[in-house]
Amino acid sequence: MQPAESKASAYTAEEEQQLEELYAAFAANHLMPLWTQTNELMPFHPKPRAQPHIWKWSTLYPLAQRSGDLVPVGRGGERRAIGLANPGLDGRAYISPTLWAAIQYLGPKETAPEHRHSQNAFRFVVEGEGVWTVVNGDPVRMSRGDFLLTPGWNFHGHHNDTDQPMAWIDGLDIPFSFQNDVGFFEFGSERVTDYATPVFSRGERLWCHPGLRPLSGLQNTVSSPIGAYRWEFTDRALTEQLLLEEEGQPATVEQGHAAVRYVNPTTGGDVMPTIRAEFHRLRAGTETPARREVGSSVFQVFEGRGAVVLSGESHKLEKGDLFVVPSWIQWTLQAETQFDLFRFSDAPIIERLNFARTEVDARDR
Amino acid sequence: MQPAESKASAYTAEEEQQLEELYAAFAANHLMPLWTQTNELMPFHPKPRAQPHIWKWSTLYPLAQRSGDLVPVGRGGERRAIGLANPGLDGRAYISPTLWAAIQYLGPKETAPEHRHSQNAFRFVVEGEGVWTVVNGDPVRMSRGDFLLTPGWNFHGHHNDTDQPMAWIDGLDIPFSFQNDVGFFEFGSERVTDYATPVFSRGERLWCHPGLRPLSGLQNTVSSPIGAYRWEFTDRALTEQLLLEEEGQPATVEQGHAAVRYVNPTTGGDVMPTIRAEFHRLRAGTETPARREVGSSVFQVFEGRGAVVLSGESHKLEKGDLFVVPSWIQWTLQAETQFDLFRFSDAPIIERLNFARTEVDARDR
Amino acid sequence: MQPAESKASAYTAEEEQQLEELYAAFAANHLMPLWTQTNELMPFHPKPRAQPHIWKWSTLYPLAQRSGDLVPVGRGGERRAIGLANPGLDGRAYISPTLWAAIQYLGPKETAPEHRHSQNAFRFVVEGEGVWTVVNGDPVRMSRGDFLLTPGWNFHGHHNDTDQPMAWIDGLDIPFSFQNDVGFFEFGSERVTDYATPVFSRGERLWCHPGLRPLSGLQNTVSSPIGAYRWEFTDRALTEQLLLEEEGQPATVEQGHAAVRYVNPTTGGDVMPTIRAEFHRLRAGTETPARREVGSSVFQVFEGRGAVVLSGESHKLEKGDLFVVPSWIQWTLQAETQFDLFRFSDAPIIERLNFARTEVDARDR
Amino acid sequence: MQPAESKASAYTAEEEQQLEELYAAFAANHLMPLWTQTNELMPFHPKPRAQPHIWKWSTLYPLAQRSGDLVPVGRGGERRAIGLANPGLDGRAYISPTLWAAIQYLGPKETAPEHRHSQNAFRFVVEGEGVWTVVNGDPVRMSRGDFLLTPGWNFHGHHNDTDQPMAWIDGLDIPFSFQNDVGFFEFGSERVTDYATPVFSRGERLWCHPGLRPLSGLQNTVSSPIGAYRWEFTDRALTEQLLLEEEGQPATVEQGHAAVRYVNPTTGGDVMPTIRAEFHRLRAGTETPARREVGSSVFQVFEGRGAVVLSGESHKLEKGDLFVVPSWIQWTLQAETQFDLFRFSDAPIIERLNFARTEVDARDR
Repeated sequence: MQPAESKASAYTAEEEQQLEELYAAFAANHLMPLWTQTNELMPFHPKPRAQPHIWKWSTLYPLAQRSGDLVPVGRGGERRAIGLANPGLDGRAYISPTLWAAIQYLGPKETAPEHRHSQNAFRFVVEGEGVWTVVNGDPVRMSRGDFLLTPGWNFHGHHNDTDQPMAWIDGLDIPFSFQNDVGFFEFGSERVTDYATPVFSRGERLWCHPGLRPLSGLQNTVSSPIGAYRWEFTDRALTEQLLLEEEGQPATVEQGHAAVRYVNPTTGGDVMPTIRAEFHRLRAGTETPARREVGSSVFQVFEGRGAVVLSGESHKLEKGDLFVVPSWIQWTLQAETQFDLFRFSDAPIIERLNFARTEVDARDR
Repeated sequence: MQPAESKASAYTAEEEQQLEELYAAFAANHLMPLWTQTNELMPFHPKPRAQPHIWKWSTLYPLAQRSGDLVPVGRGGERRAIGLANPGLDGRAYISPTLWAAIQYLGPKETAPEHRHSQNAFRFVVEGEGVWTVVNGDPVRMSRGDFLLTPGWNFHGHHNDTDQPMAWIDGLDIPFSFQNDVGFFEFGSERVTDYATPVFSRGERLWCHPGLRPLSGLQNTVSSPIGAYRWEFTDRALTEQLLLEEEGQPATVEQGHAAVRYVNPTTGGDVMPTIRAEFHRLRAGTETPARREVGSSVFQVFEGRGAVVLSGESHKLEKGDLFVVPSWIQWTLQAETQFDLFRFSDAPIIERLNFARTEVDARDR
Repeated sequence: MQPAESKASAYTAEEEQQLEELYAAFAANHLMPLWTQTNELMPFHPKPRAQPHIWKWSTLYPLAQRSGDLVPVGRGGERRAIGLANPGLDGRAYISPTLWAAIQYLGPKETAPEHRHSQNAFRFVVEGEGVWTVVNGDPVRMSRGDFLLTPGWNFHGHHNDTDQPMAWIDGLDIPFSFQNDVGFFEFGSERVTDYATPVFSRGERLWCHPGLRPLSGLQNTVSSPIGAYRWEFTDRALTEQLLLEEEGQPATVEQGHAAVRYVNPTTGGDVMPTIRAEFHRLRAGTETPARREVGSSVFQVFEGRGAVVLSGESHKLEKGDLFVVPSWIQWTLQAETQFDLFRFSDAPIIERLNFARTEVDARDR
Repeated sequence: MQPAESKASAYTAEEEQQLEELYAAFAANHLMPLWTQTNELMPFHPKPRAQPHIWKWSTLYPLAQRSGDLVPVGRGGERRAIGLANPGLDGRAYISPTLWAAIQYLGPKETAPEHRHSQNAFRFVVEGEGVWTVVNGDPVRMSRGDFLLTPGWNFHGHHNDTDQPMAWIDGLDIPFSFQNDVGFFEFGSERVTDYATPVFSRGERLWCHPGLRPLSGLQNTVSSPIGAYRWEFTDRALTEQLLLEEEGQPATVEQGHAAVRYVNPTTGGDVMPTIRAEFHRLRAGTETPARREVGSSVFQVFEGRGAVVLSGESHKLEKGDLFVVPSWIQWTLQAETQFDLFRFSDAPIIERLNFARTEVDARDR
């Protein structure tokens, strides 16, 4: 909104003095007029302080490695995780106003101790293997391409069973929880409660059978009971969508663009109450129509090469690169090769509170 | 309820005469007193006219085969299906007041023409293979152990691609639809619209990836978009439950009793609005606690030997045998060998209308 | 569906004999072929056995009065209620396959004993006053124009506090409950548990404040917690709709046709899981477009004169007259004077199980 | 969480140097380690920066009046509203991290121009009358004790029809919208679109009939269609709860404490997706048990005298006084006289995202 500038100039010197006194009285009594700030507080459309930004994997990974050499992991610091700090959100390691993204690094044979918190968390593995995350006592293998859940208030710790380090991406709703004062935290065991290294977690063994629900699990759960969404399934689902498209069948989001959402099998809805996660695959040469959406998203390139155009500026992307799309920022993906991207966002917050809006550029349709 | 017998006897002859006139006036005006029939219409607990009953596969299959020899399949008769008629529900091929169950038989190279109806339908294959059911143009392979859906108002036809006949079980809500006057019917193509014989249907290729939902399918659907629930997945899910139980983990319904419900992946709920379907596996030697439930169920033995006790009477069961458990009839399963049973019921009707009650015998717990 | 007539004639005598043997074997084994009955069981559209029918208040009321003279009310017979028996549903006092409607009559100072049952019940008062229905211990005044609830499994009895008899209409889901074997019944006190005669019940005092919900009642309930929907409110709501229409505002269902649905304030949905209730008011001279709907409805004229056209046949209607519209029967209301009608139906059953369809005659729009 | 202090001290000078370099590299690449900030970002329980605070009506009202003399109302500044700025949330007029509360003042015959925004808004009138708020063209009278809605994206303006000024309280989700970049804003008419001054708005005339829903309004709405919740109904509902309590009936939240929630009649749920509103009445002498809840609340005294104990500190309260209870701050109300309070909170945000927790002091129960 435009400020009522013209009015100010109409005041006499005496009125100016009286206004000054009024504003001083406001300040003394913890009051602030709306009329001097509507313009900023209630803009015509979202004007995020968060900026579109790219983090290169080729920068991130060596710094994580270096942390592995210098910083121990253990009770107190809890995790060797390095947060991606949006340049527009000074002083906090927030990738957006709602979301936290970090690279976490665990050296050979290291253990990150168990704890739990209200904040919802996930991990996505862009490369590597050898770590098990133990969620409420259930050891979950972490391998390349897997998407792993630690919903709010579940105890969890990690241990590296191998002689190689491993790094992955953590996503959480830390900024949202901190901002709105909703978070609780509790320490658990200093060591993980189970060092077994099974190929499949108990959660997967109960829940990862398509269209089948155990009769021992008929109560719906707020978050998904699946601890690990395996790359094998994600890859197959995307492959089938592109094959179906070739056969002339409706299956993709738009021409050349396959995508799946990770869901809670007890409801068909998002995996956690605050975080949506998806995987997108573009055929080489595909360009998505320019879009903007209310709410913020983070993408990580899993495989392939391409670019993202953010507010009109193009950025080259390679494996492991991450970027953030703040609210109402226009974005377009361009695939040079087949292009695989993991995406997470705060869409469940936006949708559950009825703030969702999407605009797709008509010229692109 | 007990009738108000004592009152009747208190009437004088004159009063009796007046009453008779009153009742005649009722009849003439399409009226009936409640007080003479509350007893029957509103019993203390459900007193189903439907009876518990067993149909032997060794009887059913040869009769279906014989029909194959004598009765053509085609437009008009539509299906070579033989309904299981509950002995308590005279004159209708109803297995219960809500459910229809039939054995359907399709000879070598035969086609059952396409049609659609409001009635919800499924098929379960206890043995054999070689038929494809074409649902809204999507050819779905039918093989041993598969559970296949044809939700209301989807066009469907079947064709046998082989030189062998094939038989399977059909389940529908025909009695419910007929009783409540909700059914519509429409003829489709006399031949199936696609004679392709793919291993997996398009619906499976889009939807059968555990915990993953295509972005092209974000709208929830009343019935499951999965056309075939494959035996391979069902078997694996049950196997894992029993293994988890052996490892001391909560996974089974009760000791020695694994079970899955077939669900609509868009909601986590029942596959169709009127029909629930489940698969149960008992370890050899297991006996389930005696239960009774509001609503009617049908079971078919898929593998193994055992017995069912219905209202205190025990019945031996072998592969393919079917039995019906009417509302509020007590039932117990006893497994001689590992014992696999498919089950379907009208539970969604009962639950959505808030009539559900279950009683489990305390002595058995 | 049309039967496969042509085929039968193609059989040789020997084949006919074999078929006869097959059909005999079916019968002996409690089996019935579908192909001989699809035509009737699965019609092209609902073909209800229930018939459209009108019951005149001028007939009903004197017969109820006569029952009051001749038949006692008390434990065993439970209620002096006379059911409206649809001419198409022989032998049962069913007004439709799902619904029961009856006129109930209570003489001066009489008490109908307390009981409870799974069946959902309501009362509508077309004239008179002086009876209180006691629902789970809460005495609820019954007066002209009131709609009163007794949801499943609530104890209830009635007593007439005056020296005048009173009659009203009962509606229940007895046919549905009986047909599907879902009903339980229990006797309560032989006298009502509270003979107080307050103007407003406790349920109304807690719940009948528009847009307000008591903090002691935040749990949603399956049925409405409101025991009585008072005529005063219904009348005012309808009056306002017609006034708003005159002011050019959207408020009525269609020109000259105001209507409200009675709802459960905890959900905004139907008052009970199986029964919908509404009140309709037509301006003099209004004619509703011809409609047909899946599911059955019952109307009672509350005030005014007019007619209903059922399947093309017109029937004059006066105060108190009742009529039933079976599934898929076309109906039109015509108002001679301002015309007030109470309506109840099985729509919640039809909608919750996804069988709903409506057809409005395009010529009328 | 406690920081891993002990570890730092174990570093050699060389290691310290290397760490410094690492941290510099983090900063240069928009990265921040989690291990140095978990303690603050993820506390053991919510530690709100927002402080419990009281604003006195005797201070607020004269300052609003003074603004009326000095500051015009019109396009640009839009509203003469003075925000209550939480002392802990420097630099913003936020009463809590999610909520905005302001006193708005409109002089005789003044008009506040029409606009709309994504932010959800309501007004509560602690005293005065004479203003109409025009919501999407529907003029809504504002009077003492009324709670009035302007859900997101509805055009609204206000005009004072009298020769007296009027003040009231505005509540919005501005902080939440601003923080999460979800807000849109649009100017409407500079004058309100309808200067009529009806006693009841069209929304009330359609929707304020207890338990009745217009058939023209069967689609559920995200926010309540009721524009004004009248004091008359609120007062009556609370009066009845206390009377029922005296009669020994369950009706109040706890002894001596009556309360209602304002709800959306189409769902029975909160009036808007982000804001809950309630009204509480305590009998003289009542003290509520000490409670703390996740999420923030604002109270305004409507009538009576009493006190609130916030984190152990007692504050006297009179008519019009407002106070904020930040997340997880313990609060107790004490009623000296009969004590009426309006309350609003961000509970729908907290509950829809599954962060709700409540702790009630056991000693008080």
